[in-house]
Amino acid sequence: MAESATAVRLRLAGLCFFLQLLTIILFAAFVRYSPESSPGLCAPQPNCSQRDPDPSLGYPRSRDVHLQALLGFGFLVAFLSRYRLGSVAVSLLVVAFAIQWAILVQGLFYFFLNGKIYVGAQSMVSADFCTAAILISAGAVLGRVNPIQMLLLTLLEVPLFACNEYILLSLLGVSDSGGSLTVHTFGAYFGLMVSRVLHQPHVDEQKVQQDVGHQPDVFAVVGTIYLWIFWPSFASATTVRDSAEPWAALNIYFSLAASTLATFVLSPILYEEGTLQMAQIQDATLASGAVMGMAGEMLLTPFGALVAGFLASQASLLGFRFLTPILRSRLKIQDTCGVHNVHGLPGVLGTFLGSLLAALATADAYGGRLARVFPLVAKGSRTANSQALWQFYALPITLTLAALGGSITGALLRTTALRSAPETPELESRALREVKRGFC
Amino acid sequence: MAESATAVRLRLAGLCFFLQLLTIILFAAFVRYSPESSPGLCAPQPNCSQRDPDPSLGYPRSRDVHLQALLGFGFLVAFLSRYRLGSVAVSLLVVAFAIQWAILVQGLFYFFLNGKIYVGAQSMVSADFCTAAILISAGAVLGRVNPIQMLLLTLLEVPLFACNEYILLSLLGVSDSGGSLTVHTFGAYFGLMVSRVLHQPHVDEQKVQQDVGHQPDVFAVVGTIYLWIFWPSFASATTVRDSAEPWAALNIYFSLAASTLATFVLSPILYEEGTLQMAQIQDATLASGAVMGMAGEMLLTPFGALVAGFLASQASLLGFRFLTPILRSRLKIQDTCGVHNVHGLPGVLGTFLGSLLAALATADAYGGRLARVFPLVAKGSRTANSQALWQFYALPITLTLAALGGSITGALLRTTALRSAPETPELESRALREVKRGFC
Amino acid sequence: MAESATAVRLRLAGLCFFLQLLTIILFAAFVRYSPESSPGLCAPQPNCSQRDPDPSLGYPRSRDVHLQALLGFGFLVAFLSRYRLGSVAVSLLVVAFAIQWAILVQGLFYFFLNGKIYVGAQSMVSADFCTAAILISAGAVLGRVNPIQMLLLTLLEVPLFACNEYILLSLLGVSDSGGSLTVHTFGAYFGLMVSRVLHQPHVDEQKVQQDVGHQPDVFAVVGTIYLWIFWPSFASATTVRDSAEPWAALNIYFSLAASTLATFVLSPILYEEGTLQMAQIQDATLASGAVMGMAGEMLLTPFGALVAGFLASQASLLGFRFLTPILRSRLKIQDTCGVHNVHGLPGVLGTFLGSLLAALATADAYGGRLARVFPLVAKGSRTANSQALWQFYALPITLTLAALGGSITGALLRTTALRSAPETPELESRALREVKRGFC
Repeated sequence: MAESATAVRLRLAGLCFFLQLLTIILFAAFVRYSPESSPGLCAPQPNCSQRDPDPSLGYPRSRDVHLQALLGFGFLVAFLSRYRLGSVAVSLLVVAFAIQWAILVQGLFYFFLNGKIYVGAQSMVSADFCTAAILISAGAVLGRVNPIQMLLLTLLEVPLFACNEYILLSLLGVSDSGGSLTVHTFGAYFGLMVSRVLHQPHVDEQKVQQDVGHQPDVFAVVGTIYLWIFWPSFASATTVRDSAEPWAALNIYFSLAASTLATFVLSPILYEEGTLQMAQIQDATLASGAVMGMAGEMLLTPFGALVAGFLASQASLLGFRFLTPILRSRLKIQDTCGVHNVHGLPGVLGTFLGSLLAALATADAYGGRLARVFPLVAKGSRTANSQALWQFYALPITLTLAALGGSITGALLRTTALRSAPETPELESRALREVKRGFC
Repeated sequence: MAESATAVRLRLAGLCFFLQLLTIILFAAFVRYSPESSPGLCAPQPNCSQRDPDPSLGYPRSRDVHLQALLGFGFLVAFLSRYRLGSVAVSLLVVAFAIQWAILVQGLFYFFLNGKIYVGAQSMVSADFCTAAILISAGAVLGRVNPIQMLLLTLLEVPLFACNEYILLSLLGVSDSGGSLTVHTFGAYFGLMVSRVLHQPHVDEQKVQQDVGHQPDVFAVVGTIYLWIFWPSFASATTVRDSAEPWAALNIYFSLAASTLATFVLSPILYEEGTLQMAQIQDATLASGAVMGMAGEMLLTPFGALVAGFLASQASLLGFRFLTPILRSRLKIQDTCGVHNVHGLPGVLGTFLGSLLAALATADAYGGRLARVFPLVAKGSRTANSQALWQFYALPITLTLAALGGSITGALLRTTALRSAPETPELESRALREVKRGFC
Repeated sequence: MAESATAVRLRLAGLCFFLQLLTIILFAAFVRYSPESSPGLCAPQPNCSQRDPDPSLGYPRSRDVHLQALLGFGFLVAFLSRYRLGSVAVSLLVVAFAIQWAILVQGLFYFFLNGKIYVGAQSMVSADFCTAAILISAGAVLGRVNPIQMLLLTLLEVPLFACNEYILLSLLGVSDSGGSLTVHTFGAYFGLMVSRVLHQPHVDEQKVQQDVGHQPDVFAVVGTIYLWIFWPSFASATTVRDSAEPWAALNIYFSLAASTLATFVLSPILYEEGTLQMAQIQDATLASGAVMGMAGEMLLTPFGALVAGFLASQASLLGFRFLTPILRSRLKIQDTCGVHNVHGLPGVLGTFLGSLLAALATADAYGGRLARVFPLVAKGSRTANSQALWQFYALPITLTLAALGGSITGALLRTTALRSAPETPELESRALREVKRGFC
């Protein structure tokens, strides 16, 4: 039986090697540095392929790329910190592959010219966003899939993420710079759908109580502090012009503060035994960030940011208390890390909020900011109301794509599991045990 | 009795809800985004209310707001990391409320125009400074006050902090960009005074040995490294113009290095059993930062920075060994986290240092920097000597305000405690136990 | 015997005090702030001593000094996180002294004018690099030298480091902005040579199994995440002009991703029992950073970065499995933290890579970047091929200096140890035990 365990591990090693080889070959064939963007250097070159970055893309144009990378990774850390110690290794495996794969796939959508993909600072930030969505999905199924299935999930989700993102940002002109829809909502519902398809009655029963954390607090503390440090900065990095006051940073800042206070309001009411856990504060922090994804850079007003953060945190707590048990018992959807409460629900709320704010957008109130947040409205090719409608229509589109993609991916993962299950039942559970050592 | 414990927790929930509702209403009524600061956008607007930021305010004008926010929060982390795991939740509650409250109160002092408070990047940094002072005060009484009292303390201290800060920075024209006086000294002595008033002989006796840490080291290590990373950056962010060499960053950098070495000099002499603990190094690091608050951006010279860091660290260690027991036994002041040694004493030393350096300031030595560090001296409305006197006079003013404010606050907290004490003695201690699970 | 233990600790205190006094006196005599670099301020001063920073120095000229400091320290953290809890105190002692000492020694080499050392932002970054090399060396001997010997090692290695760095960067015009040679290779082989000279057969035998970690994972996780966050940012901060795409950041980014995947490929093959440990991922991350030190800012291409990261990680893993036992048994070189695998080997590989890329450098491919990466080639005073040769010749020079310096240092440390050994055998091992509490 020990050999079989070794066999599983060697199969994982082989898959990793194959995937790495594949990306190396694809990188060699297609990926090039983006040429210098300084006009002086670009002018003499005839085939200067520097495309004007699509303003509707929603990604930063700011030049301080080191900060972008810093904050992009800070964004990742936010999600990594949700998973406990043992699962970090698997998460990093997912991150390592997702980044390479996202560079290729998103490159085809955004940075493709003359048969080559031109990578630059923007590519890194895009890939970080995509990886964040993958990590959210992974959070829903963590502990019930082995690393090989995790890699397959990544392989399939990255193109679907890129596809949804391209439809929303480039085709529909939706403004979603913080990823309420593209990252949080898509990632959460994709993962939940995979979880539904992978549902195994007899296995899942016995794991009902597994979610209770044992030593999560050190990471929850570090994770929460990271979020507090990086999120406002991140938000402002992607949206602020030099001379503008940082609406996005202020909004996140107020939203974080209100969400933390909200945890102290609702937690004692919901939980009898009532020791407030750091993990709840971290969930509230994450939820308040997710709800700000779309609305963050809009004219939310400081008051609105407080209310949004407060409500998102409450929704997340209520979701954990009432929705998660229903999802598990009725819909057979197990949600290991509660991504529905922390990302899915707040993402949907953020979309409602963003659509509302889009409808209220006027050139007077936004000033020079309008061209950045709603470029199509600023150009006059769309009214604020139709922009709001598009922002809202993006929600069912995202949900449909996430559900569809999640079903297909889940079905494929199920096939993999079934194929290996008969021959290696203990071994499967051994691989699982390895992963499970650190649930979120 | 269990119902009573629930009652306490529900009372906390109710208070949190009330405070959050209050700030939401006040935000809705008064707080607005600061208008765009770019002249092009501001000119056409008739009521362009962008006040020229008062240079004597001591807060940064730098445009890279994302970095400001990043470092402002880094500053907070420095204090958070002083408290152990269990108390982080309470600390975050304090942070969450203090930020909102400080935005309102400081807004009235600095950013108030036409009946509205205009918030921008500066507001966030100001609020972070204020929150740091609250956390310092909390460190003195942690473990002997329940979360409700902690919120009341915050409610009362924020206006007093803002008042003292306004007197010092705006009225007296004191230069204190790093907060030696406004943050460290005020916060420490305010907290100590509260602790004195809350003194309960029979309760405090049995807690003499509580301060010995059990698992502080992981957080001490992370905290120390955070301090090393963020403090020099923070210092330079608030003071450096683009073309200037970063005096403040260099001073902190040298001061940190000397203070760490100093710990290794004095610790083996003071403590027989002598395993040097990370917590001591962290205290030294904090002390060397506190002593640099006022003097950091002045012409301290690299040599002076080494000496100041060395002495501050020594003073802090000596304080822990000899002063804390005297404070406890003679003055009945219990200092849970030793904030007197880490913030109070170094803050006072920093004021002496800053006053001395102010007296020595000349236009030749400071160059263009003078208008930034001592704007009134640069304008000619004050001599360097009178600036130095004002810097020094600020110390008794701060101490008086802190002591007075701390007494009043302590008396009010005592009332709260007495009112609840007769009915719920066990319960009170239960709430305490919850907090105490993580002393600093 | 207890007095003797106290005596050792007092000896350490005395040495720290002496060293601190020494640097304070030297700082007072020689170290001054670098004058303002803005021309307006510099012009009227007759002895404006602002030297044009040597472009071949390889250090950043970027003005955002706060970020430099931030990232410089981030670089340090990377190494700190390799050592476990207990050894962090000793590491910080080394850092505190090394920084002060490096400021003085490197100041003599680079910032010396008219009898004074002028310190600025560059000095801090240089000192951070130097300190990183010292920490690497310390990693090789950690647990077998006491803190006093550690300080002596620092005292001796800093000048040798500065000497090697000066020869490479300034005299030979080698491009090594990330320190593949100057930091990683020099530090690793210096430490290994010290370890060889300090070899004590009977003592080392019993410690063969000491290296197994007990609670390394929290720090490995935090350390790895730090590396992921800071390394690409760091790389781009030191090399990117505003308008250029961040080659260095992209290269590190891809290299990190590939190295993590590579760990999952090789680790199950090399280790039977096969629980992949976070420490392995962290080692791979460090190795992929070390290999990028020299080649990072060159035209490595994204594909090349993937391959380099993949191979560096594999080399590091293979080194741990096969090379470390050989080093220990045949060459009597014990390598406590495996610095040969994580820094030495990847550093050498990085040099090969950098030399190869230098030979392929053309003005067309590099554009305006050439003057920055290979200033002598851009000026026409050297062909790309001769630049490549110099890059390569730097390797034996560095190895020779590191080996020579390590032998001398080791011999001196041995003398110290022998002098104290006869009188205090238990005590020595007591001091050791204190250090050993936290191996890397």
